[in-house]
Amino acid sequence: MKINFLTIFPKYYNAFKTESIVAKAIEKKIIEINIIDFRNFTLNRQNKVDDEIYGGGSGMLLMIEPIDRALESIKEKTKVILMSPQGKPFTQQKALELSKEKSLTFIAGRYEGFDERIYSLIDEEISIGDYVLTGGELPSMVVADSVIRLIPNVIKKDSYENDSFQNNLLDYPQYTRPAEYKGMKVPEVLLNGNHKEIEKWRKEKSLENTKKKRPDLLERKNYD
Amino acid sequence: MKINFLTIFPKYYNAFKTESIVAKAIEKKIIEINIIDFRNFTLNRQNKVDDEIYGGGSGMLLMIEPIDRALESIKEKTKVILMSPQGKPFTQQKALELSKEKSLTFIAGRYEGFDERIYSLIDEEISIGDYVLTGGELPSMVVADSVIRLIPNVIKKDSYENDSFQNNLLDYPQYTRPAEYKGMKVPEVLLNGNHKEIEKWRKEKSLENTKKKRPDLLERKNYD
Repeated sequence: MKINFLTIFPKYYNAFKTESIVAKAIEKKIIEINIIDFRNFTLNRQNKVDDEIYGGGSGMLLMIEPIDRALESIKEKTKVILMSPQGKPFTQQKALELSKEKSLTFIAGRYEGFDERIYSLIDEEISIGDYVLTGGELPSMVVADSVIRLIPNVIKKDSYENDSFQNNLLDYPQYTRPAEYKGMKVPEVLLNGNHKEIEKWRKEKSLENTKKKRPDLLERKNYD
Repeated sequence: MKINFLTIFPKYYNAFKTESIVAKAIEKKIIEINIIDFRNFTLNRQNKVDDEIYGGGSGMLLMIEPIDRALESIKEKTKVILMSPQGKPFTQQKALELSKEKSLTFIAGRYEGFDERIYSLIDEEISIGDYVLTGGELPSMVVADSVIRLIPNVIKKDSYENDSFQNNLLDYPQYTRPAEYKGMKVPEVLLNGNHKEIEKWRKEKSLENTKKKRPDLLERKNYD
């Protein structure tokens, strides 16, 4: 998969490309990451990407032209995704869907947002949640990260088959060494090696955990 | 505000600290950011932070001890927040609430997650959305970013008073130069300078936008 990020803060993506699972997926040539600074696509001498808002208002808006021209520089067929708090809320199901694409392009904004005409250039508008951030860089990496880990051979399959939300359930409690820490013990059932009992305990606890923390998930139907 | 990030991928935070609004808030001494690599708090010779899961299961779990010891190294009273897909869904209201704290500490995990006993060390568990990521670094920056921009004097007040979700409404459409781009024109009303009409248009469009994209927001009550 090829992933393009359109941004005016290209440095934001440095660690994303060079650390951990994403770096390994690049090494294995499963993904390719391309950071495009759309400030390089302005036609004005000051490389200005933003301007005042028609009708008045505080702050500056990103102009359509540099983004349009930056998108035109992408040669392959790609799904263009605008990161915006107004977008469709991102879900694990959406991550799975996007993991099947050949090329994704994320547009990360800043300031007061985008000129409304940007909608003529994009395929989807995605929000990572109901909160406002200073820019779209972190959200674009959030979506890309969740998508990349679902591409075959990036991580072990059994690592994501038990993910939270995979069946609208949260995970069960997990423990590692030491068996006792400051008086807190690992539940007996996990230490006795009876796999049937362990499986039963985990199913119960997963349901219990979901009921306690996110009862809304139990009522949710899988869409798509 | 002091913000501590506990992580085993400290490099992830490099650009976050040195770019844009966060960098300016640090310069103005409104915030202080402290990255703590909890790998430095292990007691074993290999600086191992993870171990196998009791009762079996794929992958590795983060041990409680290095995280506990890293937290003990923080001298000030701080609100400890665990980033996890099992946490309470993060909202703009929560961002506003956290923006009033003196010190926040985010724990970013990796691999299969945390030893369950971590809950004895934390004050809150926050999720940025119903999807799974490779680590808690991006989520911790997402929460910190949304909180930092709401701290007085970080950005102009009128920049966030019109935020999406501020009144359970999405923003109205905004336009900047040029007035016409590839045949797409800015709505007349925004060009004629009649502020009453502009305000009326924006209110209508904000409601229309919310009805179209996020009808669920209109039914939502503000909590807290």
